[in-house]
Amino acid sequence: MNQFTSPAQPLKRIAESTVRRLSIYLRFLEEFEGRGRATVSSDELARRGGTTSAQVRKDLSVFGSFGKRGLGYSVPELATSLREILGLGREWKVVIIGAGKIGAALAQYHGFRERGFVIVAAYDTNPEKIGGTLEGIAIRDMQSFESDVTRENPDIAVLTIPMHSAQEVLDRVARAGIKAVLNFAPAQLHAPMDMAVKTVNMAMELEGLTFALTNAH
Amino acid sequence: MNQFTSPAQPLKRIAESTVRRLSIYLRFLEEFEGRGRATVSSDELARRGGTTSAQVRKDLSVFGSFGKRGLGYSVPELATSLREILGLGREWKVVIIGAGKIGAALAQYHGFRERGFVIVAAYDTNPEKIGGTLEGIAIRDMQSFESDVTRENPDIAVLTIPMHSAQEVLDRVARAGIKAVLNFAPAQLHAPMDMAVKTVNMAMELEGLTFALTNAH
Repeated sequence: MNQFTSPAQPLKRIAESTVRRLSIYLRFLEEFEGRGRATVSSDELARRGGTTSAQVRKDLSVFGSFGKRGLGYSVPELATSLREILGLGREWKVVIIGAGKIGAALAQYHGFRERGFVIVAAYDTNPEKIGGTLEGIAIRDMQSFESDVTRENPDIAVLTIPMHSAQEVLDRVARAGIKAVLNFAPAQLHAPMDMAVKTVNMAMELEGLTFALTNAH
Repeated sequence: MNQFTSPAQPLKRIAESTVRRLSIYLRFLEEFEGRGRATVSSDELARRGGTTSAQVRKDLSVFGSFGKRGLGYSVPELATSLREILGLGREWKVVIIGAGKIGAALAQYHGFRERGFVIVAAYDTNPEKIGGTLEGIAIRDMQSFESDVTRENPDIAVLTIPMHSAQEVLDRVARAGIKAVLNFAPAQLHAPMDMAVKTVNMAMELEGLTFALTNAH
């Protein structure tokens, strides 16, 4: 369900698992940057990321030529390239749809701001919530969603709404012109081809663990 | 960072991405079960899961022989097998460590109970929270964690604590004998070989989307 719907040609060739590993490599590189390390080998990145050095080289080669044989990768250069590839180093405007507990947990999440994700608004349909705030972010009426989007052009919508309304809201988000959705509703959503959707399903995360517990002996 | 640390032989051969697809197939099968469908083809599972029928057959063949050529898979039989493989169809005791906003969002999450995940306790170190409740679940003092675990034997610990204390708490969880952890702290954790750890990193989920947005044109 953690699916990637995407139309763009270059993207089609790059698996979600590759993008995830790039994010992991970047985290290690930034840790190294913080400690003033100049270079890192593919072996070291592989060991830290739980993969092989061949996989590291393959992942990075997709995006160009990095590193010198025998010298490894330049930490600051590779970090800068990965930030660029991942679309970081700029600000992304995020709206949260559904001002509930998950929305609140996300709104106060420090990791977002650090990475350039700015939550610009939260939306709800509940009159008791509209006009209030979610961790300091104004909760707006979902009725104004389309006109707000036209004016403010948010990049990403986070859906933290009940399953039964998820598809309907996704359709509204798509029609309004937002091209990326992080979905927390445990629902199979159908998105247009030019929209990227990631679904985070907590029960599925736990199933990864119960699989491990069940098959470990 | 969504890493799988696991020692067991059968597990080593099965990628996290495979387990995730099994969870997805199960969801489709249960949808079909609900509609009274008797059989499903690998083509149909593939289409719904965004993969190929060859991949579906490969994923399932790891666990035995399912389906008949030309007839497809029996929906109830395959659903039962997948529930068994994923360790579902039984109750799993879960403790939440960190009675904050993410903990609250998880505690009220209906999808858990449906899948047999029962949250038995929440823990915190904050005297103002201890003795209170998190969505109806008692918040206990982290000081009693080890003795509680000895008595109650929870299966899974969910860490919703700040980054700086995550490793220390993971070590306590491991020493107490819990073998599976779902980690929400944006930290690289080192776990013993016989422990399964999954890290959910919201910033990394968003990076999957910004990658798509950045590379889509």
